[in-house]
Order: sequence, then C-alpha cells, then structure tokens
Amino acid sequence: MIVIPLIERKRDGGRLTREEWSQLVVEYAAGRVPDYQMAALLMAVLLNGLDDAELGGLTDAMRGSGACLEYDPATVPRVDKHSTGGVGDKVSLVLAPLVASVGVAVPMISGRGLAHTGGTLDKLESIPGFRTDLALHEVRRQVERIGAALIGQTSEIAPADRKLYALRDATATVEAIPLMAASIMSKKLAEGLNGLVLDIKRGSGAFLPHVKDGLELAQTMIGLGEERGCRTVALVTAMDRPLGRACGNALEVEEAVAALQGEGPPDLMEVVYALGTEMLLLAGVEDDVKRAGRTLQEAITCGKAVEKFREIIEAQGGNPDVLDDLAVLPHAPSVGVYEAPAAGYVDRVEPRVIGQGVANLGGGRQHMDDGIDHSVGFVITVKPGDRVARGQPLASIYAREPADVRMGRDALDRAIRIVHDPAEGGLPLVSHRVTAKAVEILG
Amino acid sequence: MIVIPLIERKRDGGRLTREEWSQLVVEYAAGRVPDYQMAALLMAVLLNGLDDAELGGLTDAMRGSGACLEYDPATVPRVDKHSTGGVGDKVSLVLAPLVASVGVAVPMISGRGLAHTGGTLDKLESIPGFRTDLALHEVRRQVERIGAALIGQTSEIAPADRKLYALRDATATVEAIPLMAASIMSKKLAEGLNGLVLDIKRGSGAFLPHVKDGLELAQTMIGLGEERGCRTVALVTAMDRPLGRACGNALEVEEAVAALQGEGPPDLMEVVYALGTEMLLLAGVEDDVKRAGRTLQEAITCGKAVEKFREIIEAQGGNPDVLDDLAVLPHAPSVGVYEAPAAGYVDRVEPRVIGQGVANLGGGRQHMDDGIDHSVGFVITVKPGDRVARGQPLASIYAREPADVRMGRDALDRAIRIVHDPAEGGLPLVSHRVTAKAVEILG
Repeated sequence: MIVIPLIERKRDGGRLTREEWSQLVVEYAAGRVPDYQMAALLMAVLLNGLDDAELGGLTDAMRGSGACLEYDPATVPRVDKHSTGGVGDKVSLVLAPLVASVGVAVPMISGRGLAHTGGTLDKLESIPGFRTDLALHEVRRQVERIGAALIGQTSEIAPADRKLYALRDATATVEAIPLMAASIMSKKLAEGLNGLVLDIKRGSGAFLPHVKDGLELAQTMIGLGEERGCRTVALVTAMDRPLGRACGNALEVEEAVAALQGEGPPDLMEVVYALGTEMLLLAGVEDDVKRAGRTLQEAITCGKAVEKFREIIEAQGGNPDVLDDLAVLPHAPSVGVYEAPAAGYVDRVEPRVIGQGVANLGGGRQHMDDGIDHSVGFVITVKPGDRVARGQPLASIYAREPADVRMGRDALDRAIRIVHDPAEGGLPLVSHRVTAKAVEILG
Repeated sequence: MIVIPLIERKRDGGRLTREEWSQLVVEYAAGRVPDYQMAALLMAVLLNGLDDAELGGLTDAMRGSGACLEYDPATVPRVDKHSTGGVGDKVSLVLAPLVASVGVAVPMISGRGLAHTGGTLDKLESIPGFRTDLALHEVRRQVERIGAALIGQTSEIAPADRKLYALRDATATVEAIPLMAASIMSKKLAEGLNGLVLDIKRGSGAFLPHVKDGLELAQTMIGLGEERGCRTVALVTAMDRPLGRACGNALEVEEAVAALQGEGPPDLMEVVYALGTEMLLLAGVEDDVKRAGRTLQEAITCGKAVEKFREIIEAQGGNPDVLDDLAVLPHAPSVGVYEAPAAGYVDRVEPRVIGQGVANLGGGRQHMDDGIDHSVGFVITVKPGDRVARGQPLASIYAREPADVRMGRDALDRAIRIVHDPAEGGLPLVSHRVTAKAVEILG
C-alpha cells in the first residue's frame, strides 16, 4: 500500500476516504505499513484533526479488525459503562454487579492502570484466583448465564486498535481526541451493546483535565455510538480529588465490597447511582430517573447486588470468601497514619500525586509489563472543604516496608493542602449530562 | 533516552534545547531512538516549525555526526554551489570546472535524481569510468591538487542526516523548510567551505514552486551558513521550464561539454555566469560583478575551463575522450522527432512532465535503488514565448525502443502547450539575489 500520499494529505489538512482508512488499518494490523509511517500520520491527525466520516471509517476499521460479540436478540439488553480513568475510581466493581442484579446484562471490558491512574483489571486481580482473561465465547456464555462479565481487552477484539494504541503511547499521540474516541468506541462497539454510558472525568487528575476537552470527547463518542445502533450517554464527573476513600487495588476492592453491602462513601455512591440510572434507562428496564435510582438502592439493601458480585467472582475463578472475610485479600505489612500537620481547612487532595504515590509504593506501573503489589495504597478520609484539627488522622498508608510508609507520607504532604480560611469542596461531583441532542449542566 | 516528553513539547508548540537536539541526533544515528518516535517528532516539526536556536542545534548535531573536511588555511579559497533541483539543470557540470579554472577550489558534493528531478551524479556517471564515490581523503587531495572534485554524499559526511533523510522521504516530512535547510547545510558545512552559493529554483518544476517558500529556505540556509563562518548567498532562478535544451543524463553531459566549449544555450549560460560570479566574489578572487563575468567568459573562450573538466574526469577515472568525441557517451538506439502539432506560440514547457518523461524512458528512478539508462531523454529546442509553425521540429526523443519513442511523444504532447496568441516567456531567469542583509529583486 502506498502510504506517503495519504500522510501528505493529512499533513496538508485534507482528508482520507472511508476506504483509505479501512485499507490503512488492515495493512497496518497485518504489518505491511511500517510503524514510522503510521507515527507520522498519527501526529498529522493529532495536529490537523479528523472529520466525522474519517472518524467513522477509522473506528469501523479497527472494530472490524477483530471479532465482535453477538447475542441472541431475545436475550436481556446489554449496557456497559466506560470511564476515562481516575484515582480511586472503583465504580466498575460496584456498578457491574449492581446493574446486572436488576436484569441488565453488563459485558464489561476494562483496562489496567498506567501512570497515575488505576485500572479495574488490577483491582479485580487483588481477589485471589480472579481471571480477567476470558475468551470471547466464555464471556458470551457468562453474560447469558449470570448477566455480567468483567474482563480485559482480549486479542480477539480490535487487534488493530491494540497495535495502534501501543504506537500512540510511544509517540505522544495518545492525546488526540478523535483517536481516543475511535480507540474506545472500536472496542465498545465490538461488545454487542445496546447502550453505553460514559463517565468523562474532569479536573486535575483526569486524562483530559479541561471540561471543554471532556465534552468534545463525549460528543465524539456519542456520535460514533448512536450512528452505529448503540445508544450512548455521558456524565461528566469530578476528578479534582480521588473518588471515595481508598486508593490502591485491594483497598479499593474492600471499599467496593462495602459499597455493595450498603456501606459505600457518599461521593462514590452518588457517582454509582448516577451512572447506574443512565444504564437502566438506556436498557429500557426503567423509564423514570427517580424509580431507577430506587431500584438500584433496593438491590443493595436487599443484598442481591452483592450476591451478583459473588456469582461473578465464582464464575471467573476468584475466591468468593472475599465478600465475607477481607483477610482473603492481600494486606500490606507496614501501615502508617498520616495526621494533619496544621489546623485549618482541606483545600486540595491532588489526585495525580495520590495516584503516583500508589504507583511509587508498588501499586501501579510505569510500563505496561511491570508487575504490581495489590496490597499497597492509601485510605484518605478527608475531602476538600473539610475542617481539620492539628494532629487529626487524615489518611492511612499501606506499604511494603517502613521506608515506603515515609515515602507515602511525603506524597500525602504534597497532595493534601491545608489552608487557614474555609475552602471550597471542589468541582461538582456530577456536572454535565451529555446526550446526542444536548449538554445539560447539572451542577 | 526518554523521547516522549520531547515529542510532546514539539507537538504542543514548544521548543527543544540545543543539547536536546544534539542528544536526539546522536541517539537516533546510533539506533537507540526508534524510527517511529523520530517520525512523530518530524511531523510535529513540519507542522509547528523550528526556531533559530533549534535549527542551529539540529544542523550542528547532524554535521557533527560525521567527518568534516579540513584544509590548510593557506590553500586557495573553497566555494561550492547547491541547487534545490530541477529539470535539465546541468549547471554543476559546467560551473565546477569553470570556477576551478580561475583559481577557486570547488569541493562539490552532489545528489542523485529522484522523481522528476535529475541528479548531477547520474549525469557524471554517463561518462564511462567516472567514479563519484571518493573517500574524503581522496577528495581533499584532489581539491588541493586540481582545485575541484565532483562527488556524492559519502557515509563519512553527516551520517545522521542520511538516516534522517531516508526517514523523512518515507514519512512525507521532506517538505519542512527548516528540515530541508538543516539537511543541506549540515552536509555543506562539513565540506570545509569559505563560501556557498545557493541556486533556489522556483516555478512549477521546482521542489518548492512558490517563490515565498524558496526565499524562506534561502534565508534559513544563509542564516545557518553565515553564523558558522561560511559566507552564503542565494540566487532564485526559473524552473517553470527546463534549463537549457537537453534533459537526460548523457544528453546533458553533451550540452555541458558544449557549454564549456563556448556553445552553451543562452539560458544555461546566463545561470552559469550569474552563479559563477557570486562564487568568485565570495572567494574574494574578484570584487566586481562585471569583471568576474568577464573572467569566466574568458576561461571558456581560452579553453582552460574545458581543460579543467578534463583534469577532473581523469582524476576521477573517467574517459576524457568524451571532450573530443561524443561517441564515447552511451547513445539511445531509438530516436524520434517531435513536431509542432499546430502553429502558434509556445505557452508552456512543463518541467515536471518532461522530468517524469525522462524517468519513464528509463533515465530516472522512482526509488533510490533503481538502476537507470543514461542514454535516454529529450532535447527540446523551443522555449515559452517562441513562435512555431505546424510541423516544425520542437524536440528529439532518445529512447530504448520505438514504443518508448511513442511514450516520449505523449509526454511532449502533455508538456508543450501551443496557443494561438503570443505567449509570455515565463518567469525571469534570475529573479532574486538573497544575502544575509537583503533580498534584491533582479527581474
């Protein structure tokens, strides 16, 4: 395939046809277009953009590079949630069993943590025995049988995206909004979904900190989904502080289990209910926001949400005792308490510093092939706006050794800012609702 | 070396330091920075530009990646000419011996033809036995002995540029003016020159057709040269039609020999004298334009220019009989005459069509490793503005077989446009003179 004229055209602000994108993706996936030509093209796309037709062509080509899940149309509706990633974001662990427990199928494909962000797969693998590498036929069978599966991107789905993503990661072209949208949607559209809810993070800990960029990404993905028969809605949520209290893999599983047992922190539950409500509406099992919220709350109160999590854990080879006995999870040997160095108000709990702190403790990775320690992390019990006394415990540090506890304390010193005057609580937790038709400002 | 932050910075419109460029070039040349990262960076440079400090850092790093020619300061001044490339441009073949014959050393490094443009090395290699692959110590010895050498870019000079150029060629990043300037000057500055004259082509057959782009390239190269002790001047010349009459390797050698014998076509001679005058002024052997022109004309009239070419050919292993007997050159077996299909005025002789026509006849290459037939090409005896009668011979076609003659005729049909009303002669032959201080408009 002659690629240079295509690079020239993108370089000069022109566009490629659907067929050109399609052929390019096929040839690249097959190793017949070299990485360096694709890298130059990706940088031209990042700087000059992609129009809607190109975006659709690229997305369809990446989806079409692998297998797609197909279901009997008579089965229950299938809805998934995708988050752009944050710190302390254990929403998927609560939401998948919760929504599945009320009759919506959730075939959820998640990622691993990288840099300062956590990943659902890493969290799930804190549970001894839990397998996230199911084959697609296993996923379909499990979704049909128990209504949910929590898995990683298999090599069967959108392999061209996998290869392109690795190249983007090495060439500073991850940040292109159209490329992000095409990458996410090529995988999601291969899941055979009826609906998709996007959790678009904003704030300093988000991949796209500015709400303007988040909204652009949301609208781009919604356009791609809706045109392809997958109803898509987005909520914009706050990531200017960690979500919930726990940051670190096993610690977040503990918090997710508590949430399914009715003991979740309020901010986490608000986000879970907001996203869950959208999922029930998209699936058509509820048509009223208030009633959908009540349905979800009842599923937690009556215990069927946590029982659905037990089914998922059992189906994927994990030890379900984790739901009754947290000792099953790995525990860090060195624990320290972080106390407020001064009296005042909490002004900031900086999520990037916290997330990087977890990674430095051994709980995250700098490179995709790094191993991680699931036990380490932080539990931070204060939020921006809280009043604190000097010496008041603000957080716990879970580490592999005492020196790491000190390192964790240094991270908390940098992350938590205490000021004299009363401080704001930060961004509204759920600030925008985006549909194909409109952007509603919620808070 | 961690390259991603550097790519990010160029992507976002920032700049790299001198040291960062230096390290990047060293690591890339050593194979420790992958092509795909360099390709993404080059595209970001093409779209976002390079500032003067970055340009200098990149140029010096590429020059420093290889050897530099060094001469005894007491030897004669050394001046070279560089052209941005065109069709029928055999100026180097005339200019190098001519200028060397009046006491200026010319260590000239040339290139090969690619796409529609011809290359001085290919032309020289029409002469049986002529070697262009001299080692640097041979070049220096020859320049010191006879005052000129005509060679190709050796792997000793700027190897990092060689590797980068190949990558640019495959990633549609050749067209970035700062990268072009850095590439050319990194090699020229390694030749140990006192002065450099640039022949910046403009018009439809030029690599940069628009004079604005050509002037930007000229000023960029002049800045790089002057700051590094190499006095640099540029002339902008016309490439909206072929230069001279012959297009094709051996045919151009014939025309160059004729020019050195006082029989050159007027347009070729005007460009040769204009560039040669600048070379004599830069070398300091003349200080007056008129006198320099006379000196050059006399060198042709008295025969010392053609004798210098004989010395060069002999020194580089070629058969010097070519100067006395053109039968020494390869001759195409099939020759055809192209006659004016209608009476009127010549409005266009499109150089890209002619250049591509030579390549299609076998006299040029699509890829750097293609072999070529030196004998084929065109001799076109009309220029834009000429009045022609129907059936008047306008050109000769030199081909490998009769079918190729027909193909050549088709090319001439497309290249030569004849109109009813009197037509203009095209762009002024030498239109601008650019120095570090000013751009003078000459015509």
